[in-house]
Amino acid sequence: MILTVTLNTALDLTYKVAALVPHTSHRVTDVTERPGGKGLNVARVLAALGHETVVTGFAGGPTGDVLRGLLAPLPVRDALVPVAGDTRRTVAVVDAATGDTTQLNEPGPAVTPTEWSAFLATYDSLLTDARAVALCGSLPPGVRVGAYAELIRRTRAAGVPVVLDTSGEPLRRGIAARPDLVKPNADELARLTGAREPLRAARDARRRGAHAVAASLGADGLLVVTPDGTWRAAPPAPVRGNPTGAGDSAVAGLLSGLVEGLPWPDRLRRAVALSTATVLAPAAGEYDPRTYQELLDRITVTELATAA
Amino acid sequence: MILTVTLNTALDLTYKVAALVPHTSHRVTDVTERPGGKGLNVARVLAALGHETVVTGFAGGPTGDVLRGLLAPLPVRDALVPVAGDTRRTVAVVDAATGDTTQLNEPGPAVTPTEWSAFLATYDSLLTDARAVALCGSLPPGVRVGAYAELIRRTRAAGVPVVLDTSGEPLRRGIAARPDLVKPNADELARLTGAREPLRAARDARRRGAHAVAASLGADGLLVVTPDGTWRAAPPAPVRGNPTGAGDSAVAGLLSGLVEGLPWPDRLRRAVALSTATVLAPAAGEYDPRTYQELLDRITVTELATAA
Repeated sequence: MILTVTLNTALDLTYKVAALVPHTSHRVTDVTERPGGKGLNVARVLAALGHETVVTGFAGGPTGDVLRGLLAPLPVRDALVPVAGDTRRTVAVVDAATGDTTQLNEPGPAVTPTEWSAFLATYDSLLTDARAVALCGSLPPGVRVGAYAELIRRTRAAGVPVVLDTSGEPLRRGIAARPDLVKPNADELARLTGAREPLRAARDARRRGAHAVAASLGADGLLVVTPDGTWRAAPPAPVRGNPTGAGDSAVAGLLSGLVEGLPWPDRLRRAVALSTATVLAPAAGEYDPRTYQELLDRITVTELATAA
Repeated sequence: MILTVTLNTALDLTYKVAALVPHTSHRVTDVTERPGGKGLNVARVLAALGHETVVTGFAGGPTGDVLRGLLAPLPVRDALVPVAGDTRRTVAVVDAATGDTTQLNEPGPAVTPTEWSAFLATYDSLLTDARAVALCGSLPPGVRVGAYAELIRRTRAAGVPVVLDTSGEPLRRGIAARPDLVKPNADELARLTGAREPLRAARDARRRGAHAVAASLGADGLLVVTPDGTWRAAPPAPVRGNPTGAGDSAVAGLLSGLVEGLPWPDRLRRAVALSTATVLAPAAGEYDPRTYQELLDRITVTELATAA
C-alpha cells in the first residue's frame, strides 16, 4: 500500500456567499463539508488511480469524528491516531459571482508528546507494509519543527521511498534528512533557497539534501530536477479554474509513478494531467477521470539538461 | 420558569485574524466556540439574574451535539428538540488590530413537518410551567414563516406572556398574533412600518397588534411604547465595545422585569444597564455583573407622552 501522512488534518468547509465584504454580515447560501488536509487529498487521488492507500496523522474531538465519518465511505484506509484536542476546520468563503475564494485556516489541536509517541508507533508499524510514503502539509501546534525530518529518517531506515510536500522551516529541516522527492511551489522554493529562478532554486534544493525536486509552476506545469535528468512538463494550454488540490493531485501522480516504476517523463505527464484535470473540475479538489485520460497524451515533456 | 425559544440555534465560532483581506488566505490565531442563537443568549442572562430558565428549539447532528455539550454546564435547562439535520455554525471573523467583525451565518438544518410537530408537543408541555416566553431569532429552513404567529397564539391561549424578537416577515406575522412585547431595532421597525422615526414606527407596530413595543436605539438606549405610557431610557454616556448580544441582554432585562412585576421604568433601567454592560464586556455576549449593578442607578428614564 501507499501511506500518506497528514499531521494537521482538517474538516474543509466551503461557504458560498454573494460577495465577501469585510465588517458586514453575510448569509451563507450553501455549505459543503469535506475531509481535508493535503495528505488526505493525495490519498483520494491515489485510490482513484487504483492504489491501495492508507492515511495516517491525527484526528480528535467532535470535528475529528465528523472528518472520520466523511472518510469512512471513501476507498482509503483510516489509520489516523486519536488526539485529545479538536481537529481544525478550514473555511473557504467563495464569492458566488466571481468564484474568488477567501481562506480561513484554524491552527489545529495541540499535540502532546504522548500523542506524538503513539503516532510514531503507528507510523513504524504502517511502514512495514508501505511501498512509498507522502508526508504532507503543515504541522499542528505542539509538533516539533523537525518532525518531518525525523519521519524521513525512519522511512529511509525502513527502505521505503518518501515524498515531502510542506513549506517553511519544516521543509528546510525535512530536505536536510534527504527525502526521495520534495514538491515545493516556485514561491516556497525561492523562500527556501533565496534563488528566484526555479531551475537554479531546484538545483540548490537538491544540494541541500533532496534526492529529486519537483517544482510546481502553477499553470505552467512542473519542473523536476533528478539524478537522472531535468525535465519540464506543461499542459497543452494554461487553464482557468479552481487550483485547490491541484498540487496534491500532482503529488499523487508523482508518487504513483514512482511506485509503478515509471520513467520520469511519464511520472511528470501523469502529475501534470492530474493537476490540470483538478483545476478544471467544478468541485474543489476533485477531478474527472475522463478529462485526466484525455489530457495525458497532450502534456508536453521537455528534457532541459543532463543531470544537475 | 422562564422559557426561551431558539428555533435556529447555532454554534458560534469566533476567529481572530490579523486583518481580513478578501481573496487571500488567513491564519486564524484564536478560535472560540460558544452555544449561540438569540434565545440561548437571553437564557444565559436570565439565569445570571437568578431566574430558573429553560431553553427549547432545535438541535441536531454533530454540531448540535457540540452545542448541547457546551450548554450542559450552564445553569439553564436544555429542552431542545432533536432534528436530523446538522445545527448551523456562525463564524465571526475579528480583525485583531481594530476589533472589526465580519459575520458568516450558515442557514441551519431543514426542519421536517414531523420535527415541527414534535417541537409543538414539547412546547405545549413546557408552557404549563412557564411564567413567560421569549421567541427569538431567525427561522431555520422548512419552518413556515407564520411559525412565531402560531406559537404566540398557543402561548396566549395558555395565559402566558410572550415576547417576540425577530425580524422581517416572521416579525410582521408574529405582531399580527398580538404578542405582549416585541423588541425590534430601529431599522427592523422602519422596514416593518415604513416609518423612519422610531416613536412613530413603534406606535404603528402597536396598532398592528403588539401590546407593547421596545425599540432598541443602539448606543442611545431603548424606547418603549406601552398601554401605560411611553418611555425612553439611555445609558449615562454612549459606550464603545462589542454590541454582539446586547439586544439579547435587553430582552432578558425586559422579560425578567415583566415576570417580577416591575414598573416599566424599572424594566427599562434593567434592560439598558444589561445591554450596556454587555457592550462593555471584553467577551462577546457576556457581561460583568458588577458593571451592570453600577450602571443600574445611572440609566436615565424619561416619560415621553401619555399612552399612545
